[in-house]
Amino acid sequence: MKKIIFATGNEGKMREIREILRDLDAQVLSMKEAGIETGIEENGTTFEENATIKAQAVAAQAKKAAAISQAEIVVLADDSGLEIDYLNKEPGIYSARYLGEDTPYAIKNKNLIDRLEGVPDNKRTARFVCAIAAVLPDGSVITTRGVIEGRIDYEEKGKNGFGYDPIFYVPEYGRTTAELSMEEKNHVSHRARALKAMKGELKSRFL
Amino acid sequence: MKKIIFATGNEGKMREIREILRDLDAQVLSMKEAGIETGIEENGTTFEENATIKAQAVAAQAKKAAAISQAEIVVLADDSGLEIDYLNKEPGIYSARYLGEDTPYAIKNKNLIDRLEGVPDNKRTARFVCAIAAVLPDGSVITTRGVIEGRIDYEEKGKNGFGYDPIFYVPEYGRTTAELSMEEKNHVSHRARALKAMKGELKSRFL
Repeated sequence: MKKIIFATGNEGKMREIREILRDLDAQVLSMKEAGIETGIEENGTTFEENATIKAQAVAAQAKKAAAISQAEIVVLADDSGLEIDYLNKEPGIYSARYLGEDTPYAIKNKNLIDRLEGVPDNKRTARFVCAIAAVLPDGSVITTRGVIEGRIDYEEKGKNGFGYDPIFYVPEYGRTTAELSMEEKNHVSHRARALKAMKGELKSRFL
Repeated sequence: MKKIIFATGNEGKMREIREILRDLDAQVLSMKEAGIETGIEENGTTFEENATIKAQAVAAQAKKAAAISQAEIVVLADDSGLEIDYLNKEPGIYSARYLGEDTPYAIKNKNLIDRLEGVPDNKRTARFVCAIAAVLPDGSVITTRGVIEGRIDYEEKGKNGFGYDPIFYVPEYGRTTAELSMEEKNHVSHRARALKAMKGELKSRFL
């Protein structure tokens, strides 16, 4: 059976991914399940570049894992971030590293809200962007992108999700992404949209 | 009953809009139905600015139409376009005017395909962007944005939709937007997404 390895250590993300890819005729594995460990430096300048760097690094590791037949695997990786228009699209590709990789999101979120003090709704526009890269068995790379448009709220709201979710207000739902259910999020999130696009690519090229 | 006037003369667009807004407790009117005629110069530098210019021009006309009570109406307008990454986001806000306002899309589409000759899939990434602006009864303006990510195909495909739809390939569906049904398009299109976001705004602020 064909295998899809997703280059993430995040179990929440893996749940989301398995849910969306579940009807594909392939086994979806986390890096850990595929026996791959890798430290990757994301030094690209776009979401697509960073996702590609990660996917290629994991594909190189997978090649060394003798148990896996190359012809049968695709490696996926994602890179995502928050672009705030008023802040010249900061934190962008530096979203995870913003104020330091280990800084709690409660602090990052508060900082962004503070930087937007006095800024009206109309100028608080922002988007979550997700790029997904796939390395196919022949070494070629495909990328897809998904976006959700919204704006930065005035305070943190909601307990679901993670990262910047509590300050990202989605007009369509009248709530932040941290207030959406898993089902709602899998319908509209940047990652879900990028992944559905990738699913289409894999169906036509791999499966 | 509250009224929503949508500043468009395009009947196809009106059908799409009525379908998405149909469960709102408001009457949705085209400009024509509201008895408004207006020539508008779109001289903004962003989709949001252009949508706002249109909505404000129509709102000013609606003010003069004595039959309509100001307190009860919202005017909406949209502006959309195609951003092709390889062409530095051309044609962008000039999408309708690209190669001339009256040039058939068969020619515009062929021209864009020619400009991407020899460019591989990965560099053909593009997006349809739609901004919608609302002028509320108190004169304040809200904007929302919707996006669909995809790439430029190698030839025109499909008979549905209009404009650049036949060359815009959507990986999730494995087809161009001109090959999507009305229902599919109302699910994923840039305009549908912007409009659903606006629907959320109107629910919380107007209805």
